[in-house]
Order: sequence, then structure tokens, then C-alpha cells
Amino acid sequence: MTSEQVRAYMVGLGQQARAASRVIARAPTAVKNKALLATADALLAAADTLVAANARDLQAARERGLDAAMVDRLAVTPAGIQAMVEGLRQVAALPDPVGAIQDMKFLPSGIQVGKMRVPLGVIGIIYESRPNVTVEAASLCLKSGNACILRGGSESIHSNQAIAACIAQGLAAAGLPDEVVQVVETTDREAVGALITLPEYVDVIVPRGGKGLIERISQDARVPVIKHLDGICHVYVDDRADLDKATAIALNAKTHRYGVCNAMETLLLHESVAAECLQRLAPLFAEKGVELRGCPKTLALLPQAVPASDDDWQTEYLAPILAIRIVADMDAAIEHINTYSSQHTDAMVSEDFTRARRFLAEVDSSSVMINASTRFADGFEYGLGAEIGISTDKIHARGPVGLEGLTSEKYVVFGDGHIRQ
Amino acid sequence: MTSEQVRAYMVGLGQQARAASRVIARAPTAVKNKALLATADALLAAADTLVAANARDLQAARERGLDAAMVDRLAVTPAGIQAMVEGLRQVAALPDPVGAIQDMKFLPSGIQVGKMRVPLGVIGIIYESRPNVTVEAASLCLKSGNACILRGGSESIHSNQAIAACIAQGLAAAGLPDEVVQVVETTDREAVGALITLPEYVDVIVPRGGKGLIERISQDARVPVIKHLDGICHVYVDDRADLDKATAIALNAKTHRYGVCNAMETLLLHESVAAECLQRLAPLFAEKGVELRGCPKTLALLPQAVPASDDDWQTEYLAPILAIRIVADMDAAIEHINTYSSQHTDAMVSEDFTRARRFLAEVDSSSVMINASTRFADGFEYGLGAEIGISTDKIHARGPVGLEGLTSEKYVVFGDGHIRQ
Repeated sequence: MTSEQVRAYMVGLGQQARAASRVIARAPTAVKNKALLATADALLAAADTLVAANARDLQAARERGLDAAMVDRLAVTPAGIQAMVEGLRQVAALPDPVGAIQDMKFLPSGIQVGKMRVPLGVIGIIYESRPNVTVEAASLCLKSGNACILRGGSESIHSNQAIAACIAQGLAAAGLPDEVVQVVETTDREAVGALITLPEYVDVIVPRGGKGLIERISQDARVPVIKHLDGICHVYVDDRADLDKATAIALNAKTHRYGVCNAMETLLLHESVAAECLQRLAPLFAEKGVELRGCPKTLALLPQAVPASDDDWQTEYLAPILAIRIVADMDAAIEHINTYSSQHTDAMVSEDFTRARRFLAEVDSSSVMINASTRFADGFEYGLGAEIGISTDKIHARGPVGLEGLTSEKYVVFGDGHIRQ
Repeated sequence: MTSEQVRAYMVGLGQQARAASRVIARAPTAVKNKALLATADALLAAADTLVAANARDLQAARERGLDAAMVDRLAVTPAGIQAMVEGLRQVAALPDPVGAIQDMKFLPSGIQVGKMRVPLGVIGIIYESRPNVTVEAASLCLKSGNACILRGGSESIHSNQAIAACIAQGLAAAGLPDEVVQVVETTDREAVGALITLPEYVDVIVPRGGKGLIERISQDARVPVIKHLDGICHVYVDDRADLDKATAIALNAKTHRYGVCNAMETLLLHESVAAECLQRLAPLFAEKGVELRGCPKTLALLPQAVPASDDDWQTEYLAPILAIRIVADMDAAIEHINTYSSQHTDAMVSEDFTRARRFLAEVDSSSVMINASTRFADGFEYGLGAEIGISTDKIHARGPVGLEGLTSEKYVVFGDGHIRQ
């Protein structure tokens, strides 16, 4: 397709999504749930077709020499289909956020004013290889009353089309139009450029993928973007910490999983407990094969550590590497965090009530924790029941974004013929 | 200044604002209120200086041939200063939104999770001639714990600088740094271009002014913008309306004030009550000098009306002109509104409960009203106590934006040494 044809195709998807968004916005909860459960049934019934479509993608990926990890992410197995089905059933079981009215109150003029939770409208999701995102993103948009346009990776195009056919069956079973969920059919890269520059048809973009992808999208978008950049998460161990808790939390935050955005990347230690902390933690990290990189004070206590450079304070390792810095007090820790943190998740270990209040107020991150592992920063752990991503933005939604993050609130006003004096 | 110098100057303001934002974010309510009240005192004490500085702006405006309405908006009178002082005292009296924690609950893992309301950080406000906006915007940003960079119109530069000096006195009296509120000192237009492209220092832009200004800013911004475009507001009179209420509301919505964004621009009439509505309303509008423009069915009932073109449905008149369209039923009215409305404020007059529920759910505007005048769409009327603007965006804030719209929520997590299993 020429670039005008791609744009025209995307405008067409946008117009259809806008029209469909009006239908899904007012669909009753039972209808939306029926579509979700019927999609689950369709996926189960089409398992062989899905695996066959996926085999074409896997074949192409191997021919193009994609690495084993990427091929692995691309695979759709019977167990993977079962997980998609479970996910759909869980989303169907979640409360419907749409239409909730809160804070309804009478004002001096006699009118009654409140806020009603409403869908955003049309959501564009741009993601990379995993085909399960197609089901997950579609289900969250649908349940929250939004139409969506899904643009997956070109390497998973056949898998995504096969999944899209199941979603279309689910929508049809509930009497909803196909265009509530549209999967972009072209692998042309210009489709992304078009999707992010159609504010008349698309209300928000949620990119999911590597930082490079998200930065490019944010740079060029003319539509608001709910984005997740780095996860440079900190744990600060205060001199009033319970060191058993500190040890458990630091170990968990770093080693529970390495390649995740809520893993700790930098450990900050109060100077008066640094020696004991390092004495306890160093052998535990060594056992797990975690490389330790330290500031000069850390190196004085732990000569086997690698010297940390300024770059280490601003690196998301996503790997068994940990930067360690010894600080004079909580103020210095907060200063370090507010300088280097990606404003994702930062934790303090301390038994001190007043310091806990200050740490909570002064650390400007989307999740701020006291005596808990950063690994808890997750929509499921927070009880949202689902997660479309974790926002490191400051407006609209911070932290894990569930169904509510895909909605907004409008004002509703009731009167009895009231006019303004 | 060269454009590099302007940019360097704005980067300097941005860096200072970022540093100051950390101080104001954690300032206690009493300290913020002290700054607001001390600013009020400083404005009163400096009344002569303010009027003198304003005289320079007025002189320049007259020399440049600005029209009388613009010169009028620019004027700072003793009564105007008194209004600024009252505004500051009202903002000081408002509850502080910052730090409120809500929905704190225990999760199955044993952690406790809630949301804390926090400032956005640094807010850039770009506005046109009225110097009182300098005080108003600064007071709302300060109370909500944000640092701000204010860029007023070049025609009010001397007035704004004099006001800025009073704000600086107020901040100093409360022991807060000057840089919490910075007024851009250059009138160079490139300052705006720099302000809206510094996401590392500015968290959100709130433009206040004409549609042209706001569209340009939204087009070029690399920072999220909370914006207000048109106010094309509708009143739909249903066949189940109480026509006394309908008459009062239509008259009030159109004629209470013409040049405001929440004035009605299009009246939609159910065909079975159109004749009676027009019979009642036409003489009332004629008395006020309102020009009526109608669809063919309207013209059949009201031959003296001007024929309306498709343009009329999408025009914000801000003038004594009203477009009238006769529709078959509520569905046609909703369809018209969702097609032509600017998603600002739309009202239905009807006694029908079920239709009211549907109108509220299906009209996708920031304020949706039943049996009340669109003129109520206002932060003060809604009980927000203040208003920085009315958002026609869908994410973050819809409708009148008060102190809460200048904040966000972060997650707070409490544990007792909890780790993720």
C-alpha cells in the first residue's frame, strides 16, 4: 500500500471505531460479559486454527532469524489459549466501572451535581510480539465500554488475525458490532504513524513494548498517550529499619524476577546500618549470582563490588545487577530517588512513623511503599483485577492501570427547571 | 534575545520550577495559606504601584490601536485589585486537596494499598490579556502544591511583573522560595514554544485564551495540555418536557450571557412540541434581539427565521444568535449532539425518568444536564470553590477544573516486611 492508502485505511478504522464506541459505551454489563464469555468459547473451539496460524508466524520468525526469546514470546500453545480463556472469564467477572455516579450533592443554587464514570471512547493499543495481548487489551477495552484499534507486531500478524476472528464471533454472539474491536490488518509501519495522529477518531494511545517504541510514539503522537517508560525502582533501608524485613525485602525486590519493571535496580543504605546490611545481603546476592555495583563507601565495606558510575544510578538493568549507594540519612535518600528514579515504584524500610509519613509525602513516584517489596506494584496485587499497563505519567493515571484507568468522569447535573440567576 | 537565549532562559525557569516544586509539594496547608493571604496584603499595599504599572500597558495598548474591549480587559482598577484579594482569600479558605489518602484497603497478600492525592509538579499557564489571571492561576497552583510558570500576554507585561512582585512578597512571608511562582519576563513569542516542549521540567500546560491560541499550543506541545476548545452547547426539549421549564431554561441558556462558553448555541425541539415552544420562545428571543436560524421545519413554523446551514450546527456564536433544529425524537437529538457538540455541556428538558437515564448515559459531553440551564457548567456553581478552566478533553479532567484537577493520585503501599511470593 502507498502511504496515502495506509492513512486512508486507518482513517476508515478510526471512523468505524468512533461509531462503534457509541454502541459499546451504552451496552449493558450483561451484554459486554456475554461477548467476553463467547470470545472465550470461540478461542477454545478454534484452538487448532490458532495454533496453525501461530505456526506460520513462528516459521516466518525462525526464517528471519529472530532470537529464541522472541520466538518463545510469540508462541501460542494450548496452555496459552487456556490462559487467555481464563483471563477473559476473569474480566467478565469484574465489576463494570461504567455509569457509576459519585459525590452527587445539592449546591446552593438548588441543582444537584455529581460525577459519572464514562468510557474514554476509542483506545489505540500498540504492542509488540505477544499475541495474548490482543485478547487481554480487547477484553479490558470492551469491559470498560471502549472501542479499540489494536496494532500488534508484524511478526504475530497471523496469530492476531486468528484471535481477532474469535473476538468477532464473541461480539456477534452478544449482538455487538465487529468494529468494537478492530485488529489492524496491515503490517505497514506507517499504520502506527497514522493511528497516533488521528485525534478526531482516537482518544488515547496505550503503547506496550520496549522503551524505544514508547519514546518514538510519545514523540510523534497527536493523541494523548498513557505510557510506561523505565522502571528504575529503589529500596531505601533506614537506620530505624528492622533489618530482617530489610534483608527479605531487598532480596525479594531484586531477585524475585529480574526482567520486570518493578524490580529494584538501586539499593540505598543509611550509613549507620550499611555495614550490617551488606554483611547480610552480600552472600545472599552472591548465591543468586547478582553483580553488585557500589559507590565509594560501599566499596570500602565490600571490596569485591564493582565501582558504580553515575550511569548506574540511571540504568534499568532488568538483569541480575544491583547498584548500591550509602547515604547519610532519609533526606539524602529522597534526594537520590527524586533525582534518579523513573517515578515508578520506590520503597523505604523503616519502623519510624514520622519518617514514613514524610517518605510517602515527599517521594514523587507512582507507587510509594513502606516495608513492602517493590514487586507488589502490579494491578493484580493492588486488587484492580486486571492491568493494561503501568503508567509512569503524572496526569490521568499513575501506576498500575486497570479498568478505571480506561475511563473518565463527566459531570451530571439534575435540576427542576433551574436557571442561573 | 536570540532564540537560543530564549530557550536557555526558559530551561532555567524550568529547572528552578522543578526544584521549587519539591518544596511546595510538601509545604503544610498553613504555610501555603499564609503565602496566599500575604500576597493579598501585598496587593492591597501596592495598589498604587499596580495601577501605575498597568497605566504603562494601557498606554502602549492604545498606541498600538488595540480595540476598546481588549483595552478594557487589560485594565487593573482598585475594584479589580479588591477582586483579586477576595479571590486569594477564598482560595486560602478552600480545603487542601494534597495528601488525602483514600480507598486504603488490605489485599490478600497482606499489604495495604490506597491512593494519595499529590500535586502534578510544575504547571505552565499560557494566557492572554487579563492580568487578574496571574493572581488566580498562581493561587490555584500554589494551593494545590504545584510550582508554576506563568506566561501572560505581552500587552500586560508591566501589570504582570508588578503582580509577580506581590506574589514574591507573599511567598517570602511564608518562607517559600520565589521560584514557586515564576512570571516569564520576556515577551518573546518563542518563550511559549520553549515552555510547551520541556517535558523534563513542565508536567502539564493549561492554555487560557482564544481557540486559535489553544489549537496552536496543542499542535506543538510535547507536554500534556489540559485544554478548552469550543463551547457548542445544546438544549433538547423533549415531548415529555414541562414547557414552562423548557422556556425558562432555553431563555436563560441563550441570553443570560452571550460571550461565554456554556451558553446554548443550538436548540433542539421534539417535533410534537416544536410549534408551542417556538410560539412561546420567539417573542422572548425577539425582545432580547436574538437572531434565530432554523432548519427547514423550523422555518415552516417560524417564517421570519434565517435558514440555517450545516455550518450553523458547528458554530460557537458567542453572540445573540441561536440555531434551532426540529428533531423526530430523543434519539435524533442525541445523534445531533454527539455529531456536532463540542462535548462541553448539553442539556435535556424532560419529565421522563427513563429518557433522563438514557440521555445522561449516551450524551458524551463533559457536563450532561437534565432540567437545568447549561449556564450552570462552572467550577463555582459546581461547588469546586475555584476554576482554572473548563476541560473539553477526555483524559485526566473533563468539565470545570478546580484544585483537584491540578493534582493526581499515586499509590501508597504499607507492609510489615511483606515480600511477593
